[in-house]
Amino acid sequence: MAKRSYPLAKVYSLLEPGPVLLLATAGKTRPNVMALSWHMPMEFEPPLVGCVLGNRDYSFDLLKAARECTLNIPTVDLADQVVAVGNCSGRDTDKFQSCGLTAKPAKLVGAPLVAECYASLECRVADTRLVNRYGLFILEVVQAWVDGAVKAPRTLHHRGWGVFMVAGETVRLASGMR
Amino acid sequence: MAKRSYPLAKVYSLLEPGPVLLLATAGKTRPNVMALSWHMPMEFEPPLVGCVLGNRDYSFDLLKAARECTLNIPTVDLADQVVAVGNCSGRDTDKFQSCGLTAKPAKLVGAPLVAECYASLECRVADTRLVNRYGLFILEVVQAWVDGAVKAPRTLHHRGWGVFMVAGETVRLASGMR
Repeated sequence: MAKRSYPLAKVYSLLEPGPVLLLATAGKTRPNVMALSWHMPMEFEPPLVGCVLGNRDYSFDLLKAARECTLNIPTVDLADQVVAVGNCSGRDTDKFQSCGLTAKPAKLVGAPLVAECYASLECRVADTRLVNRYGLFILEVVQAWVDGAVKAPRTLHHRGWGVFMVAGETVRLASGMR
Repeated sequence: MAKRSYPLAKVYSLLEPGPVLLLATAGKTRPNVMALSWHMPMEFEPPLVGCVLGNRDYSFDLLKAARECTLNIPTVDLADQVVAVGNCSGRDTDKFQSCGLTAKPAKLVGAPLVAECYASLECRVADTRLVNRYGLFILEVVQAWVDGAVKAPRTLHHRGWGVFMVAGETVRLASGMR
């Protein structure tokens, strides 16, 4: 898959539909990855993204310490890998290896990209004020990569307890909203 | 449409897939409504929801003052109404009337429910610490209503500039994640 650099001003449009993400961190001894659905755009440019992580998640500590991560967007062909990532912990498992995913070096951050995802965002933690209270990390996206061949990604959208909605048809309406 | 009271512990599952919402406020002289895609669950129970509003939006001032709103989830059959809501301002328009939507009294908050939506959440503002910096309102959902007949809602998911993804098929996978 050939991912190319993607305009930062358009990053919000990748996240706004609400896909399940894979959040990757460098880890202390090996890279780690978790599934994440609690996220939203918070600013167009520079692109800011709010993410809520549980404070018992292994990635919570890793992200708090390293202050860098990547957000990667899987499509439905990676559903088994996404579920596998959600069902184990990086505390005792090399999740990239056990879940069949490939960690690829990023350009600007120490956290790896997930090679199999059609889009990857390199992020630095921009604001930690509400981390302790809500687990809310505000990230700035500093570099984005997208496979330009994917126009209508069949992303996964979590409804809870293993039920996912898969992105359906695209409609174009006369909206003036960015 | 018969909406019934819905368990607060399951509210996150309505929002986690990332649908476009209609956020309604009581307004000073008449109720108002806006389209909103920048939202995410922040806690299971009591359910908290993070929402980012632009500080030039009329609803920003109304929500900041009243500290109550409703979040309503439209399906694709309401696409024209959603686009109409996004294309005008409540400063000079009675948006419920001009966009063909019905404001219905809520149970616990002063803001109205949008009758045509399959789900409606009554919310109070729980945290305003990051409102000035990011437009981030943290809401607590105090009452939820869902039309139980809608099992796989064909929600709208905004990709920007009038392009929407419509919720597609449902898949069930062996995930242990809530």
